[in-house]
Amino acid sequence: MSSSSPQDSARTAVPHDPAEAAKRKAAAYAAAQVQDGMAVGLGSGTTSKLVIDEVGRRVKEGLRIKAIATSIQSHHQAVALGIPITNFAETPRLDLAVDGADEVQRGSLSLIKGHGGALLREKLVEIIADRLLIAVDPRKIVDVLGSVFQVPVEVVPFGWESTAKRLRDLGFAPELRVHEDGKPYITDGQHYILHCDLPGSGLSPEDAAEAFNRTVGVVEHGLFLGMTSQVVIGSAEGIEILDPAR
Amino acid sequence: MSSSSPQDSARTAVPHDPAEAAKRKAAAYAAAQVQDGMAVGLGSGTTSKLVIDEVGRRVKEGLRIKAIATSIQSHHQAVALGIPITNFAETPRLDLAVDGADEVQRGSLSLIKGHGGALLREKLVEIIADRLLIAVDPRKIVDVLGSVFQVPVEVVPFGWESTAKRLRDLGFAPELRVHEDGKPYITDGQHYILHCDLPGSGLSPEDAAEAFNRTVGVVEHGLFLGMTSQVVIGSAEGIEILDPAR
Repeated sequence: MSSSSPQDSARTAVPHDPAEAAKRKAAAYAAAQVQDGMAVGLGSGTTSKLVIDEVGRRVKEGLRIKAIATSIQSHHQAVALGIPITNFAETPRLDLAVDGADEVQRGSLSLIKGHGGALLREKLVEIIADRLLIAVDPRKIVDVLGSVFQVPVEVVPFGWESTAKRLRDLGFAPELRVHEDGKPYITDGQHYILHCDLPGSGLSPEDAAEAFNRTVGVVEHGLFLGMTSQVVIGSAEGIEILDPAR
Repeated sequence: MSSSSPQDSARTAVPHDPAEAAKRKAAAYAAAQVQDGMAVGLGSGTTSKLVIDEVGRRVKEGLRIKAIATSIQSHHQAVALGIPITNFAETPRLDLAVDGADEVQRGSLSLIKGHGGALLREKLVEIIADRLLIAVDPRKIVDVLGSVFQVPVEVVPFGWESTAKRLRDLGFAPELRVHEDGKPYITDGQHYILHCDLPGSGLSPEDAAEAFNRTVGVVEHGLFLGMTSQVVIGSAEGIEILDPAR
């Protein structure tokens, strides 16, 4: 390969955006954790896209893995890169899942995820992973979960107004996620998303998760609690690892 | 109208099947509870079909109601009969919902519902009803919930094998609902159904409901707890009413 190939130039280019540089650092670390023989969950979003690119490059060089993607978009990316795809029937456990997050709570490593619209598949894949590695830039680390992002809550379209009313009564001030034309955003699983205000509800993440689970019409929510093994935070200078087990 | 109209003959015919006769008695009582000006939830299944027929007849005679149906089938039946349809945005509360059940637990009036395949919509409609009236024949009354029927659990198709494994680990011995050709049954909401063994799990209905709610991949389950206001049991001889508030 010549040094002017698009892949090389993408890896050696210095992005002007510091957040972009940070994402690349985090993604490079995350991709390096994928080892020969592993069953791997591949995440969604901009950081995951970088991880999948790098994993795809290593597969071309001989890395043998099988993967399940957390979104249709990531699935297509993985297939295009020649990453072998497995399924839940064949692979009941994953060795590792790698994904980004909207927010990471310092200390607990609790997450808000799903603003990319793929929270349901992300949770379904990551709940079966022995190890969940979250790659983020520093802006994603918060002291109070929900201080920047709302919690996306995936709901059944039938009767969504009524589900929204029940969430409103619980204090979550839900807002329907819509496209620019005002039409509801529809998830891979054919559901709607209600964005919910966590701090405004006055509930802890744990109590909020319980309330979402009990609400009829809720399919799944974007609180990922007790699932994260390790967080890698990229910055322009390097990486930082948050790992309670270390 | 002549006395030989199909509707009249249907109402006056004496069915040979005692269960059918019982259903008709229960359905007639349930339909009579629908009053002028009400917003009504219309159920699914064979007993509900009889209720909707009778409500449709009364609408033709001048009864003014608006209704939401719990299945696509019931919706079409109601529309065909000229019953005015409302929606959740317009009608956040219903005065009354009328439906059948697979099992009713004596005493608690806890239900197993959803073997018709419409548990999600049934629960979404009935959770907003001030009063839920269940019309059944005597065979549906049990001392131990789950002693005849399994609990249908609606799950996301993506990763359903993994969701089934988690339910298996909880002791529910889940079985995928399939058509005769072996293909998965798909609900109105585009999900799969796993039939779960409640007594076999050793859990109370309340604990089982909690476990289903917490399981990633579960959309909703067929345990309807603390929702029923009144049960009407039809028999060849008449009706019996179970009503804790009386």
